[in-house]
Amino acid sequence: MAKSAARRGKLWTTPAVQALRAAKDVDVAELDAAGTPGFRGDKVAGAALLAEREPRLSALQEKLYANGRSGDHRAVLLVLQGMDTAGKGGIVRHVIGAVDPQGVDHASFGVPTEEEKQHHYLWRIRNALPRAGRIGVFDRSHYEDVLVVRVHNLVPPDVWEPRYDEINAFEKEVVDAGTAIVKVALVISKDEQHDRLRERLERPDKYWKYNPGDVDERGFWPDYQQAYQAMLDRTNTAHAPWFLLPADRKWFARLAVTELLIHTLESMDLDWPPPNFDVETELRRLG
Amino acid sequence: MAKSAARRGKLWTTPAVQALRAAKDVDVAELDAAGTPGFRGDKVAGAALLAEREPRLSALQEKLYANGRSGDHRAVLLVLQGMDTAGKGGIVRHVIGAVDPQGVDHASFGVPTEEEKQHHYLWRIRNALPRAGRIGVFDRSHYEDVLVVRVHNLVPPDVWEPRYDEINAFEKEVVDAGTAIVKVALVISKDEQHDRLRERLERPDKYWKYNPGDVDERGFWPDYQQAYQAMLDRTNTAHAPWFLLPADRKWFARLAVTELLIHTLESMDLDWPPPNFDVETELRRLG
Repeated sequence: MAKSAARRGKLWTTPAVQALRAAKDVDVAELDAAGTPGFRGDKVAGAALLAEREPRLSALQEKLYANGRSGDHRAVLLVLQGMDTAGKGGIVRHVIGAVDPQGVDHASFGVPTEEEKQHHYLWRIRNALPRAGRIGVFDRSHYEDVLVVRVHNLVPPDVWEPRYDEINAFEKEVVDAGTAIVKVALVISKDEQHDRLRERLERPDKYWKYNPGDVDERGFWPDYQQAYQAMLDRTNTAHAPWFLLPADRKWFARLAVTELLIHTLESMDLDWPPPNFDVETELRRLG
Repeated sequence: MAKSAARRGKLWTTPAVQALRAAKDVDVAELDAAGTPGFRGDKVAGAALLAEREPRLSALQEKLYANGRSGDHRAVLLVLQGMDTAGKGGIVRHVIGAVDPQGVDHASFGVPTEEEKQHHYLWRIRNALPRAGRIGVFDRSHYEDVLVVRVHNLVPPDVWEPRYDEINAFEKEVVDAGTAIVKVALVISKDEQHDRLRERLERPDKYWKYNPGDVDERGFWPDYQQAYQAMLDRTNTAHAPWFLLPADRKWFARLAVTELLIHTLESMDLDWPPPNFDVETELRRLG
């Protein structure tokens, strides 16, 4: 254990939680999407470390769940934002896939349904918040309402403009109710997106992941960059900070999110909940 | 592949789907809960085979999901029933845990909430049915309404008695709508349950799984056996058959459920969905 921690310390020169924390004056256009901030290992070392860390994440998740079952209201919410093909689904599959499905509340947010459109944009978000003891995962989120909505003028500026503050207030409320929020913006380069879209068009087992709309959205790259920049400028709060994650290297993105979740869970000082019954009495009853 | 199929054939002398299918005249009290019907390997061989089969299950699940995303309405529903400690949660964790969490709709059914009580007993069940392309998992299910409800006379016999037929009709409707139902009754021995409950009382990391009510329920063992027998006699239909799974050996139960799911998915003749766009046009647009 001490040995593996030492090895980990050599690979992570700066802990992920520090290395990836979005700076106040960050310029998203300047980020190297192929970088591995804080980590000096290669893909092989990263994959090996991920395999080593998965049981740790899984053990922490079980403790969170155990506490949730025992009256603790705390939960964790992982918010994943990123351009098409940035690897949100892969993180769900490979990172969240390492923990017990019973302890996961997963939701993905696409174009609002007719019912959703009849409500405030946070309505569907509130409905999908993780239950006590769960790790919630949002594949896209309320941030769509200041990203795609802003880029395409789906509502006028005087409607989306106040949303940054609304979102900050909403997230404060969620955090105050006991849910730690981990917001991750996955950043891929335009070239990498090209290659990933192309792969989807070249492999019949990937056609289902391709959507012609993705190429249309790609045409709005600078507008999206601007919208992401505004999102980071306006919603990178102390209670729900953004992590800016270079995502051209899938192995790094998965390892980094694993570390962020482990850090979050470790910060919760989870212990096994005490029995809410008298152990001796129950042992006698059981016989 | 051919080699591994041959090895598998030697371990499974009868395919799980046949060996575990509840016979029409089955006597649940006669079942050897420590048996491994159809399988002649030991724990080590079983664990090795499970590790080998997980990628197969995961690949099939991805195809099911891909089709669901492409307009196919089919889904799979795994129904898990069994006495406390029978291993339902372990199956979710270890079998369902092998597939992409995005493709799983998990629900567990405990004592009905106040809201649920205001509705028909199938209301909460219908609400939790898997979406297109998903594997749904019910940890307990509508069968509670002919098990615990019957054992404790929570409603009079003239209320629970018609439920067997209602459930058959309901499941027919679900199957006709495209969801394959795999019903698994996990059977543990009373001795094994004793040991598992005792372990929960002896290990602080397991206290949270212990509920004093489990010992009370244990006192109704013969009544539960009778209720399980009636459930098998009355709801073991051609469209939604029961599998009777000896569950004293956790490794066997997990392997067996994996095989049942693989069989079900293979029977669906899943292929990658064709593109719903013109590939050449899109390649040109992408550039």
